[in-house]
Amino acid sequence: MDYFSEIDLAKLRDRYPIGQAFLDRYSGMSRDELFSLQNERFLELVATGWTVPFYAKRWKESGLEPGDIRSLDDITKLPTYSKDDLMASVEEFPPLGDFTTLSNFAPEARPPFVFQTTSGTTGRPQPLIYGPTTRETQNRLLARIYQMQGLNCADVLHSVYGHGTVNGGHYIRESVVHWLGAQFVSGGTGIETRSAKQVELMRDYQTTAVVGFGDYIAKLAHVAREAGLEPGRDIPVRLISGHLGSETAEGMSALWGGAEVYDWYGVGDTGAIAGQGPDHGAMHIMEDGQYVELLDVDTYAPLPAGEMGDLVCTCLYSTDVFPIIRFNTHDVTRIVTTENGLGLPFRQMEGFLGRSDNMVKLRGINIYPQGIGSILSSGFEETTGEYYCEVTRQDHREEMTVHVEASSQDADLTAAMEAMLQTRLGVQISVQLCPPGSTAAVTQLESRQKPIRMVKS
Amino acid sequence: MDYFSEIDLAKLRDRYPIGQAFLDRYSGMSRDELFSLQNERFLELVATGWTVPFYAKRWKESGLEPGDIRSLDDITKLPTYSKDDLMASVEEFPPLGDFTTLSNFAPEARPPFVFQTTSGTTGRPQPLIYGPTTRETQNRLLARIYQMQGLNCADVLHSVYGHGTVNGGHYIRESVVHWLGAQFVSGGTGIETRSAKQVELMRDYQTTAVVGFGDYIAKLAHVAREAGLEPGRDIPVRLISGHLGSETAEGMSALWGGAEVYDWYGVGDTGAIAGQGPDHGAMHIMEDGQYVELLDVDTYAPLPAGEMGDLVCTCLYSTDVFPIIRFNTHDVTRIVTTENGLGLPFRQMEGFLGRSDNMVKLRGINIYPQGIGSILSSGFEETTGEYYCEVTRQDHREEMTVHVEASSQDADLTAAMEAMLQTRLGVQISVQLCPPGSTAAVTQLESRQKPIRMVKS
Repeated sequence: MDYFSEIDLAKLRDRYPIGQAFLDRYSGMSRDELFSLQNERFLELVATGWTVPFYAKRWKESGLEPGDIRSLDDITKLPTYSKDDLMASVEEFPPLGDFTTLSNFAPEARPPFVFQTTSGTTGRPQPLIYGPTTRETQNRLLARIYQMQGLNCADVLHSVYGHGTVNGGHYIRESVVHWLGAQFVSGGTGIETRSAKQVELMRDYQTTAVVGFGDYIAKLAHVAREAGLEPGRDIPVRLISGHLGSETAEGMSALWGGAEVYDWYGVGDTGAIAGQGPDHGAMHIMEDGQYVELLDVDTYAPLPAGEMGDLVCTCLYSTDVFPIIRFNTHDVTRIVTTENGLGLPFRQMEGFLGRSDNMVKLRGINIYPQGIGSILSSGFEETTGEYYCEVTRQDHREEMTVHVEASSQDADLTAAMEAMLQTRLGVQISVQLCPPGSTAAVTQLESRQKPIRMVKS
Repeated sequence: MDYFSEIDLAKLRDRYPIGQAFLDRYSGMSRDELFSLQNERFLELVATGWTVPFYAKRWKESGLEPGDIRSLDDITKLPTYSKDDLMASVEEFPPLGDFTTLSNFAPEARPPFVFQTTSGTTGRPQPLIYGPTTRETQNRLLARIYQMQGLNCADVLHSVYGHGTVNGGHYIRESVVHWLGAQFVSGGTGIETRSAKQVELMRDYQTTAVVGFGDYIAKLAHVAREAGLEPGRDIPVRLISGHLGSETAEGMSALWGGAEVYDWYGVGDTGAIAGQGPDHGAMHIMEDGQYVELLDVDTYAPLPAGEMGDLVCTCLYSTDVFPIIRFNTHDVTRIVTTENGLGLPFRQMEGFLGRSDNMVKLRGINIYPQGIGSILSSGFEETTGEYYCEVTRQDHREEMTVHVEASSQDADLTAAMEAMLQTRLGVQISVQLCPPGSTAAVTQLESRQKPIRMVKS
């Protein structure tokens, strides 16, 4: 029993088409037809869920019995769970918890699986466990997004996602090597391959696409210039796909000689959930595999399109080792209400707008530090895009000051920023301008893939 | 066309059996029968070789035409090549050289391949290119060696091989995840996951096996103890498989609470070539896939068993993208003359004994710095195992001084070591004893997977 024998490759290729086959399959499909396909996959998944101790216990505690979930419409009867619940499961059943089918096997009879961890951005790293079919489906969904954005097997793709036990670098590498077929250069973080060496590799192999976290990709453009290499000419990057940090898409494109810039969204457990298409609009949710709900961050009640809330994901294909059924990412975003510009039956969403466990309530309004960053950097070209939010408690109420790097620190600019935040967020937030580079000690931009954007004091 | 569709998995599993099927297939097979199997695979490979510009050109220059190589016995008619030739090919045909079938395709029609680099221990990193079948064969051969050494799917395997663009960590991970099925923890180097964190992961996941370079695995035992974790008890490691550096197998075993210690040998291009079996004896060469020759380091003439020389490898399965035909690794070892203790038809070899491009000729005798390290650490328990060789040129002849870390620096110990080197190597070498830890600045033990063992001054 090996990794490959566990995967029905023909079924996988058929269920999750990529490239032209993806557009051919889904363009013009109705929401009803999509629902019917999702429903079938969902019922398969729920059947696996009942065999997993973690789910069986929680579902019984919610008063459910096998057979009670008869359709995808019943999904809201199932409890959600979050990273905290997985970590509690790990505590109780170390070291791998009871949330996978591995619990049902003696170690010597265990099916193959992929093991990685989260980066531990929000606390202790969580074990990530993928059955072979789940893994390759996630690999394929990302390859689909990359293809939709214009990548193909003629590209030289440089990845700055980190490796070690962290999932990111390995996931992206498998996705590209197994399903996209581009030349994949696994640069990793600046700690794995120092930045000067990364740009040398990019020059030597004539990189056409860079993937990773935006903050570091932006930094590499500066490192290239310092080394006398002009991005876009000496390094012919035509496309960047990743996760924008403090740069805007326009700013990133300008840094890299006019490259097309795309975003996509996913978390460790689920892999890629949604990605921008060639229209550079809202992200297309890969709804044939990823069933997404948006829930109110306080009540967990379902939200209508347009409202911001917790993204909860069910991986319809995750029937082999670790079924993912109503995983609350605590990442905050919103579903957009515009029609799908590619003619796909899929809903579209905005990108990552913040974390609800990193949210601050000011006068009853939910404020997400990451949201503040994008408001300021899209509104004021004086900013470098670097900032952090400082929350203080005064007289039993919380106040927020945003420390923003800007080329000038004058009072008019401060006032203009405060006015914009007041207008956009409906609550008063102070702005403290500071010179370029001065927030790095707090954000730890150099050493973290995801910089720190909020401190409490 | 994806990675998986390029591989005939049934054929791969049949040609390169692992586990019990491996022993069943090869135990008791005659050398003649093995030769016939090798011969068939070799002729397939040579046919591919002729389609590759790099080989076609060199072979024609040697006066050969297609059809001239009629049997594996003719292999010595083909020229050898080394990393230098590949790098020259890269210079002439940047960035991927002309040594793969990729040269025959337009970029948009290129078959999928795996791209990594060497670590650049001996100069500029070399691009490593693997077709899917070649890659998975190499993955399987390593999984076969691991299984032969006693690893199985119930193990928790912690890897300290590095990632980034370097091949090692990715190769080992694929091998274990795809074919062995153990829980694989991709720790990486101490730069990717700091040492204190590595031992925490080992405790949390109850690591049963560690794989990687010996120097760092030894260091982790000390780091564990500093953290109050007793190797063998708090971290239940029962097996170590890797590449011994300055530690002896006995020393490594003692550090890790009596774990079994195994070695295996391979290089970036070829993957695993040979590994120790359960008898802990010389390494079994995986001769159904890896055809090994030992050549005189000066004349490149074939050497009889027992004599030390350059290991030249032909990867009999590498018919898809990068055929590897008479690759001179410039790693020095010897074939042993004892009978195969497992009843396999395979020859056995010693491990890595040095590099011929790092060799020093003293009074006509070839001296390999790595060989000196193992002589001293197996003969004198006062040493820490750390050392470096300093070569100086005096009056037109080269002299060597070995700087050896030892618990005492007295003259008797110095004299005893010099006497042993004189006896074992037949040439006079000076010994300079120094305190534990004092060679680290030269060897760069902390930051390099393969420490520096020779300097010229």
